[in-house]
Parts: sequence; C-alpha cells; structure tokens
Amino acid sequence: MLESLLKPKAVAVIGASRSPGKVGHEILANLINAGFKGDIVPVNPSGGEILGLECCADLKEYDGAIDLSVIAVPNKFVKAAIESSIGKGAGSVIVITAGYKETGEEGAALEVEIAGLCRSSGVRMVGPNCLGVINTEHDLNASFATQMPGKGGISVVSQSGALCTAILDWAAGRGVGLAKLVSIGNKADLNETDFIQVLAGDSQTKVIACYLESITAGDEFLIAAEEAANTKPVVVLKVGTSSAGVKAASSHTGSLAGADIAYGAAFKRSGVIRAENFESLFDSATAFAMQPLPKGNRVAIITNAGGPGIMAADATEHSGLIVQPLQPHIAEALKAKLPAAASVGNPIDVLGDAGPEAYAEAVKAAQADDTIDAVIVILTPQAMTDAVGTARAVAECIKGDKPVFASFMGGHDVMEARNELMALNIPDYPSPDRAVAALKSMCDYEAWRNRAPRIVKRFPVNRRRVERVLSRLARDGRPEVGEVEAKEILRAYDFNVPEGRLATSLDEAVATAEQIGYSVAMKISSPDILHKSDFGGVKLDLSNADQVRDAYDLMMLRIQRIAPEAQLNGVYIEQMGKRGREIIIGMTRDPQFGPMLMFGLGGIFVEVMKDVTFYLAPITADEAMQMLKATKSYALLLGARGEAAVDLGEIADGLQRISQLVTDFPQIAELDINPFLVGPVGSKAVVADARMMLSGLDP
Amino acid sequence: MLESLLKPKAVAVIGASRSPGKVGHEILANLINAGFKGDIVPVNPSGGEILGLECCADLKEYDGAIDLSVIAVPNKFVKAAIESSIGKGAGSVIVITAGYKETGEEGAALEVEIAGLCRSSGVRMVGPNCLGVINTEHDLNASFATQMPGKGGISVVSQSGALCTAILDWAAGRGVGLAKLVSIGNKADLNETDFIQVLAGDSQTKVIACYLESITAGDEFLIAAEEAANTKPVVVLKVGTSSAGVKAASSHTGSLAGADIAYGAAFKRSGVIRAENFESLFDSATAFAMQPLPKGNRVAIITNAGGPGIMAADATEHSGLIVQPLQPHIAEALKAKLPAAASVGNPIDVLGDAGPEAYAEAVKAAQADDTIDAVIVILTPQAMTDAVGTARAVAECIKGDKPVFASFMGGHDVMEARNELMALNIPDYPSPDRAVAALKSMCDYEAWRNRAPRIVKRFPVNRRRVERVLSRLARDGRPEVGEVEAKEILRAYDFNVPEGRLATSLDEAVATAEQIGYSVAMKISSPDILHKSDFGGVKLDLSNADQVRDAYDLMMLRIQRIAPEAQLNGVYIEQMGKRGREIIIGMTRDPQFGPMLMFGLGGIFVEVMKDVTFYLAPITADEAMQMLKATKSYALLLGARGEAAVDLGEIADGLQRISQLVTDFPQIAELDINPFLVGPVGSKAVVADARMMLSGLDP
Repeated sequence: MLESLLKPKAVAVIGASRSPGKVGHEILANLINAGFKGDIVPVNPSGGEILGLECCADLKEYDGAIDLSVIAVPNKFVKAAIESSIGKGAGSVIVITAGYKETGEEGAALEVEIAGLCRSSGVRMVGPNCLGVINTEHDLNASFATQMPGKGGISVVSQSGALCTAILDWAAGRGVGLAKLVSIGNKADLNETDFIQVLAGDSQTKVIACYLESITAGDEFLIAAEEAANTKPVVVLKVGTSSAGVKAASSHTGSLAGADIAYGAAFKRSGVIRAENFESLFDSATAFAMQPLPKGNRVAIITNAGGPGIMAADATEHSGLIVQPLQPHIAEALKAKLPAAASVGNPIDVLGDAGPEAYAEAVKAAQADDTIDAVIVILTPQAMTDAVGTARAVAECIKGDKPVFASFMGGHDVMEARNELMALNIPDYPSPDRAVAALKSMCDYEAWRNRAPRIVKRFPVNRRRVERVLSRLARDGRPEVGEVEAKEILRAYDFNVPEGRLATSLDEAVATAEQIGYSVAMKISSPDILHKSDFGGVKLDLSNADQVRDAYDLMMLRIQRIAPEAQLNGVYIEQMGKRGREIIIGMTRDPQFGPMLMFGLGGIFVEVMKDVTFYLAPITADEAMQMLKATKSYALLLGARGEAAVDLGEIADGLQRISQLVTDFPQIAELDINPFLVGPVGSKAVVADARMMLSGLDP
Repeated sequence: MLESLLKPKAVAVIGASRSPGKVGHEILANLINAGFKGDIVPVNPSGGEILGLECCADLKEYDGAIDLSVIAVPNKFVKAAIESSIGKGAGSVIVITAGYKETGEEGAALEVEIAGLCRSSGVRMVGPNCLGVINTEHDLNASFATQMPGKGGISVVSQSGALCTAILDWAAGRGVGLAKLVSIGNKADLNETDFIQVLAGDSQTKVIACYLESITAGDEFLIAAEEAANTKPVVVLKVGTSSAGVKAASSHTGSLAGADIAYGAAFKRSGVIRAENFESLFDSATAFAMQPLPKGNRVAIITNAGGPGIMAADATEHSGLIVQPLQPHIAEALKAKLPAAASVGNPIDVLGDAGPEAYAEAVKAAQADDTIDAVIVILTPQAMTDAVGTARAVAECIKGDKPVFASFMGGHDVMEARNELMALNIPDYPSPDRAVAALKSMCDYEAWRNRAPRIVKRFPVNRRRVERVLSRLARDGRPEVGEVEAKEILRAYDFNVPEGRLATSLDEAVATAEQIGYSVAMKISSPDILHKSDFGGVKLDLSNADQVRDAYDLMMLRIQRIAPEAQLNGVYIEQMGKRGREIIIGMTRDPQFGPMLMFGLGGIFVEVMKDVTFYLAPITADEAMQMLKATKSYALLLGARGEAAVDLGEIADGLQRISQLVTDFPQIAELDINPFLVGPVGSKAVVADARMMLSGLDP
C-alpha cells in the first residue's frame, strides 16, 4: 500500500531551491544525501543545476513518469504543482507548503480544493503543512528534517512536524533507528488511520508510535487501530487532555479536540497503548521495538547498588507488577558464582565492584528461571565498574525469550555504555522507574492481546415498539424523552420497569392507583420539567386513595406556582419499586467515537467521588463486568461491610441492553437510567427513573 | 559547624594505597587532583611515597595535627585508625570501610563500638560504609568518587554511595555544579538530620537534595527539616514506598523503614518537597538552585511549535497551575514584534523559523507582565533554529525576578544549547512536562513558606481525670481501652459523650434506662470483645423497659453461646445520640514520627474508597481544616446533594482535642472515635463509639 509514497522509483521536488537553508533546497539535499536509489527530478522555474542535478523549469519537461512529488512552492502555485504531478503519473504528493486550514477559513477552502483535486485523480496527498516522509528501508528522505535516522523498528506518525524534528534529534542522540517517519500535517487526505493501516502491514515496522492532537474519523480509527494492534503494538501520545491544552491545540491546527474520556475509551477498546507524555511514548516504543513481549508480570531486578534496586522494586510494585524472587535452586547456583556478600534475593545485588561476568551470571540465572517474565539490569558507575563491558556481557547472554531492560544511571561515564546498549537492542533508561513503566506498557499490551474474543450478545427485543415511540416523538418534534416514554422504550428492550400509567385528572389518578395496587409513586409528567424532584414533582410511597388525592392537589398547586408555563401531560402513577442499591447506567454519544456507556454507583459515588467508568458501545458481557470492576466502589456491590451482594449480572446485562438499544437507534443522543435499582443475587433489577435525549430534533 | 569535616586544614588518608583502582589510592588521588590547599597525610604501613607524597607508616609519625581522617583500611584495623586519628587531634573521621551493620549482627556490634569510641572523644564520624565527602568550595574531594563536580548551589546528602556516583556522573554530563556532597553510609554517628542542619547554614548551598532509605530519628528530623526549609528548599527522595521496596531496603542496610504514610505526613509538616523519583529529585533541585521562587502559579509558555506547547499547557493545568494569557496591551505590543502568523495567546507560538530575537521578545513580554509568575521556554530543532543563540538570547534578557525554565527538545542538535542553558543557570528539561513538574514543586514550596503561623491551640481540659483512668487501667494491666473508659477519657477532654452507665444485671439495666430516659442503646462491655457488633453486642433504639429486658436476655444468651470465656463487665446503657454524619477521627503512633491523626468519613468512605487523610500531631486549627479539605468526600460535609452542611468546626475541634490528648498522654498508642456523629452547623458533635490502645502494657 502507498507504494508510490513510501517506495517511489522517481521523485520530483517541485520548488527545489539553490539557497541552502530554504526548505526546497533541504528537501533535495536530503533526498540526495540519504542515498535514494531512484531518479530525483528537481523542478525550478529558473532551471539550471542544483546540487549537481539538472533542474526542469517545469515538470512537464521531464520525459519520464514520476511516482511521488514533494511540493514546496508558495501557496498559490501548489495547485498547479499538483496538476503537473498528476500529469506525470504521480501516485502521491507531499505538500510541504503551509498556509492552509491552520490560518483560517480562506486557507481551509484552499485545502479543500487541493484535496479534492487529488481525490478526483486518485492521487494520495500527505499534508499540507508538514515536514515530509522518511522511509529508511528505501533510503528515502522526502522531508526537510535536518537528520536522517538509521534503520530500526519504530515507525513514527506525527501530527506535529516540529515534534518530528525533536524525535529525529532524540533518535540521533541515542542512536535509535526508525523504520518510517510520517509528518501528517493538516491531513487533508491521508491521516493517522491510513498510516496505521499501512504500517500494520509493513514488515520493517515493529511498533507504531503516534503523536496526535486530533483524530479525523473516530470510527475508522477504531477499526484500523484494533486491526493494527492485533499484529503489532500501537503507542499513542494524544495531547489536548486539559482545557488549556485543547484551546492550544485548536488555535494551533483548528482540529476538533474530542473529550479526553472518549479517547481513553477508544484506546482501551482498540488495544492502543496510551503514552502519558513525550518521554514515555519513546520509552515504550523503544521497548517494543527491541525486546520480546513478556509472558507475565514477574520481574527480576539486577543491580550493583542497593538504592536503585529499591527504586526499581518500588516502581514495580506500584505499577502492579511483581518483584519475584528466583527459585531456590537457581538462587543457590547463582550464589555460588557471586561473592559471599552478594544478595540473590530480589533485587539481586551483584555488589558495587561487580564486573561484567557477575552481571552475566545474574542475567543468565534470571533468564533460566521460568518463574521470571522480565529482567531489569541496573548499573551505577562505581570505581571498578566496566560499564561498556557490562553492556556487552549482558547483550551476549540474552536469549531473546523474555524482555531485558537496562538502566545505566549517570550522564557522563556511562554514556558510551548506554549508547552501546541501545545499539545492541537493549532498551536503556535514565532511571529504573522508566524501565519499569516501559515494561508495564508491554504487560498491558500482552494482556490485551490475550483478551477474550469480543462476542457481542444480541438480546431478543421489541425493536418495532421503540421505532413507534421514537417516530411519535419525532412527529411532535420533542428531543427530550421524559420518564414515561423512556420507560416504554426500555421496557421494549426487556428492562424491568414498574407498572405505571399516565393519569390526567384527580379521579383518574386515584383509579389508576387502585388498579395498580398500593403503594404507588406519583411523578409529574411534563416535557418542560426534566428534574422532577426539584419542582416537588415526585411523591413516593402513597398507600391509599386519600394520600393520592393529597399528593395530586399539592403537586398541581406547586407546579402552578413554580412553573406556571410548563406544559403538563398529567401525573405518572407507578407501582413502588422494591428497594435496592442505586446504580446509574447511561450513555453519551461522542462526536468522534459514537456511543459511550457509563456506569457508576448512584448518588455521591458519581456526583462527589467521581467514581465512574466508561466504555464504547457495543459492549461484550466481559467488558461490562470490567466496567463494574474498574470502579473503587465495586467492593460495595460484592457486599462489603456485611451488606448483601447485589446481582452483578443484572447490571452487566443492563449495560449490554443499553449498548444494543443505542446501537440500534443512533438518534438516541443521551440516555440515563438513574437510579437503576439492583437487588440481591437472583433478583431482577428495576428502572426507577430514566430519561433520554434525541438528536436531529430542535429542542 | 563541622568545620573539621568540611573545611579541614590537614587530612590524613589512613590506608592510602599505591595500586590505582584501590579505594585507598583513589581517595588520595581525588584529594590531590581536586586541588586541596591544606596538608595531605597518606598513611600506609609500608611507608614510601604515593602519588608524590611521602607516606607515614603510622599516623603517629606525623608531627603535626590533623583535622580530618579518611579511613579505608580493612575492617579490623579501623578502630586503631580512629584511635590514632584522635591522638592527632582529628575533629572528624570518614570511615569508608564496609562490613558493619549491613552484614549482620557481628558487624552491627563493631559499628556500635567505633561509634562509641568517636562519641567518647568528641569526634564526629561519617559512615561507615560510605563513599566520602565532597566540598567544592574548599576544593575538598575526600571520597573515592570518580568525578569532582564543579561549584554550584545543590548540596546532596545520600544514604547510598553508589547513587552518589550516579549523581556525580549525571552532574558531569549536564555540567551541573554542586556545593557539598555527603555519602552518609550506615550513619552510625552523623546522619541526614545533622547534615540538613549544617547545610541549612551553609551559604554555598541553595537547595538540599537528599536520597534517603530511612530516617534515624523522626523527631529530630522534623525539627531540623522545618528549620532548614524555613531558609532554603529541602527536596527528599525517600525510597522503600512499597512492600517490595521496604524489603529490599532492609536487606540492604538493615534500616527500619517506617510506614510511607508517616513519611508523607512528616514531609508535609516540615515543608520538605518530596520527589517522586530520581529524575524529579534533580529536576526540582536544579530549578531551586538556578531560579528564584515564583510568586504565584500563573505560567506563560513560549514555543516554536504547537505540539510541545499543547503538552506544556496540558501538564500545567493537570498539575493545578494556571495557563495565563498575557495582558492585552502586552500581547499587542509583542504581536507587533513577531511575524503575523505568530500567536500571542498562551502558549505564545513564535513559529518554527523563530530566531533568538523572537524568543527574547517573547520572554521579555512575559517577564514584563505582572500577571505572569513563571515562564517556560520550549524549543524544537527546526531547519532555521539557532538553538545555542536562542539559549544565550533568553539568558541575556532574564531579569531574575520570576523563574524561567527551558525545554529544548531533542538529543543531538540541541545538546550544546541544553548544556549552554544549564551553564547560564537556566534549568533545562528534556520535555515540557518535567519543566512544569519542577515549577510545581517550587510553587508548593512557596505556598508552604507562606503558610499561616503554626499556633497550636490548648483547650482547657480535665487532665487529672484522664490520669486517674489511665492509672486504673495500668494497674489492671489492660492495654485495650473499651468504650466505657475511652468515653470517660474523651469526656474529660470536653468531647460531647452521650449520658451512659454500666449495668451489671437485668434489673439494673432497666433502672438505668429509666433514669437516663428512652430511647437508649445497650452495648456489651467486655475487655475481651472489641468488635461488639460482630457478637450481637449492640442494640439500638430501645424505647421501653420490655425492649431493654428482651435485649439484655438475648445479648447474654448469645454472648454465652459465642464467646463463653469472655470476661463480662456488664452492659453499657446509653442515651441514643442524635443522628448525624458519621465521621472517623483517630490516631496511630508512628515509631518514627509519633502521633499521626487520621480523618475520614465513616463507613464506606474509609473502608472501601480509602478516602482518608493523615497529619502529624500536634495540629493547628488551620491544618485540621486542611485535613478535611484534602478528602474527596469533603463536598459531602459542605452539603452536596441538597443535604445540610455539617459543622466543620466541630470536626476540626475534635481533631485538635485528640491532638492535645495524645500529646499529653504518650501512653495512648492508638485511638479511634468511630463514629463521631456530626450534625448541622451550630450543633455539638457526639462520640458514638470509641476505643483506645495503651502501650507499655502486655496484652
């Protein structure tokens, strides 16, 4: 895929310049210096020779075909440059030139125009407003970056061209190689999803590292990311997680920054490893590129100093991994090979004067122990330390079946050894914590790979009935679905809803209550009153006709007084539900990723403790249970403090039914069941109150 | 203070060796190479010359006096070496030799012996089992470190010698200077507290950075750290925060690792900045050493690339700081000086081709704006970027009244500029997040410096009555203080305790209830039953004599059945307290830092949500309020969800009364008031149940 872009045979540089420092010059120089094997065609209106290559004044002059055109002419000439590229058979163009969407409406219109031009000709475009593309395997540096990286397993997709330069400079500093680097710029045509797809199938790419400020199409991203993650790790740094960051991101590229919670849910679903910051993006990527995945989470720590060993042990335990001692027979055998004062516990302390051999013995022992899944090797530069020798000795005894990480601490004496480690494919980190964090990201990815198959259950439901209710509401032009209709819809999806009917007069209220049987609840029904209890619009536990009369009269009196303009449907008389734990389950629809389910314990747990979890619909039974388990208050559902356990299956079932409902009916924009009353194991949960909001209707 | 150690005139090296690589050789070489101005006296039994200096076969041969002796002889000769040093008038000794407490009991006994020898002669000892001491101001390198740092404002105190080497190597790599470096080793005499005291008074030291695995004496540390923090920042990395880490720490040095929560409380009290990991220790220390404290938390971000600006904005907001836009008139003036496409919002984007001048203008504008408290300057290495020039231009326009941080991102092209920044006293970080984290630690420290004066209120209480109760319990040899006596004690400290009395028979129970007035609670009273409700030993809301009789008989029947051997005092009949929000306030006594107060909302909030806060006693009114505010459930106390607000003053008051009680009576080892029922504003809180545990009595 995208052969013309990533493996072109002939590349035109439109806007090639003879002034060093100019973008059009640097691109040409980069193409030449990277040793590109195909034809390079500089295009410059003044013709002549640049960097030893004969220029065309116009691409038309070139008598061959080209595959790729890198365009670095001023804004107003870009369209012509694309047209001439199409004329020469280009399959792809890279538009380096800026001045498009990021500058405002006029630029956005220009961008739409050139994207349309490409699309109508079947040509793919990278950019505009980007740094370019690098493919080390093909010796292709079609960018104005100042550096060409060596070959390696990390491929980078970045929405910021400037960060590409920082990444390349970091890679140069640590001697880390890359497979591909793509600066996607304003992504008018090709975007993150396209490149994730391409890189998933690229044999040189071992890990895909993305820097993103926005995602162009959430649904496509979800599918592509999950498919890619099934074959190789995808690590994403998504910025704009704060309101200040979102503001900065939108002033920067005009990208629509979605809610951060939705991104989190999307990444969780699709197996994307989320990096917390710039350093952790490459800490993880380096680990994935250089080491095999761990089979489990049991870690051996090898160190020549106590302090850093303690740091590593702290970080390991805090991140949920296990500091696992060697098996006794292996520990004993190792002890015999180390000085008497060495410790073969975990951390394994080879002592301050340890040479390369002692480290090698310890690494061999940890590798031979099948109760150990990963090894972290720590070195501090002490008087007798042979850091480079140790790096080599460790590398030599690595068998490749479990990951090994290094943290050679310091900045001057250890630098050569640290670079040697990286060159020998052992990821090295400036502190033990960062090694542990990288390992943790590998464990998380491995756990995702081993997840249960995603089989979404379909419940038998009365879909036609929901269609009827929704068309009625649509006819009335009412986006707000009150309790009565919301319950009707939920009942059709086999939710347990208390028996209830609307009554429009005092006598009808009493008659309805008598029919349903006491005790009953009375709730005001009005499209204008969503928060019923705030208006005195809910009366519970009415147990005889007198109480129903009193409640009715009082309710009408108060509503009249407080909200005289409210349109009244009447009162909803409902059988009193049994008691149970109050749960909230709900859904909001993210503009990017679609329906996102929410779960939390009712009342303070959601409102004060913010103890809620989210998951993208459609959801499996397994995922629904994970949502419950991810809350702190989960212990309460299990029956902490002597209370009876509630029926977890009922909650998981409810989440799946909502998932099915909102997938079936995309016009449901929001949904809340609050409270959902869940009783002891074996009992049916009850929808005590519910509301929805429809899209596509003006409120 | 410690002049003989830090500013000696004559230094003996006992165990000076002629073999390079040996510790006794390296120490001598370090002393010489660092340019020490005083006399150096190598001592080696074979005499002769080492590194151009004439050796004494025995220190006795030296005909002058010495101030400091660095001892690197084998274990068994250390005592004699100390004795000969004392004989020559040494004020301090550094014992490099290992093989003491860290190796087991025998070593620990040896350590006690040499420490006693020093103490009895008024000589101070560093070590044993340490790397040594460095004082750059005095050109003193009395260590076997491989590097001598340049002069700088950071002083390091480290419990790990190996980490000292990593720190020195890091400092060498980044060109960071140090004032003093002390490897405290096993700290048989001089410990972290001594050096914090000394460094607090050292004019070369701008910030004290400590790596600690344990604290020798919590009470002394608290005082010294707070005194030091009043004059300069103290940043501490305390490891052993996990059970694996504690285990590693104790196998490593045999130090008693205290509970991590207590360390957190101690650091908070004494103004110590806690570093989360090794990198943040030096990230913070560098900031403190190089930049003035911020006056507030409003941050301006200057960048030549959108992405890193967003990262910085995210990190700023997430850490609770404010991304503050420039004032309009300053922004406009800046806009006139930058290219049209530049953004003068916040982040201020000077654009990818920005030269040093554009950066300088932006930094000047941010400095001139008095609504900005701190400036973060970000650079990515783009085609036109002059990183070194920018570093210099930024440094030149710094006025020094507000802190400026840099994050020049990359690893190769920017390295020279990054080192230049550090040389120019602008702390530079590999990513914007780390700059923000360092700034945050400065803001926290500044907030602590501006704290209200710590005035602990003393309440008028009946101390004698508590003394009487406690002596009675001591006479009985009972460490567990049940509800009845605990309430008696709390009543003496003016807690509001419901009226209640012990009854030892059915008739007495009924009579007591009639006297107190219904409704009453009945609770079993037995030193053998602490968790009364587990045994059916609590009955609430008894409202007439019949109910009292039923409850009494049932209780006796059940106790007989379940715990026939329990010693029974009778039943405690108590007036039913009014309802209120259930609070838990309590105290545990940390072996290091003494009484630690605890606060949390009752029930699930403590048990399930772990929403609790701790603070060291004695506590001020202000600190008690901070404890409440630090919980997530605080909003509930304020009256979230339409409930009435509770009387916060009553809780704060209760915490202060407990603080006074446990300070007055150190034999109270544990105390729990659970629940403490707190009602609406203006009402008195009630002790519904309480228990204590006394120390010094066998259970």
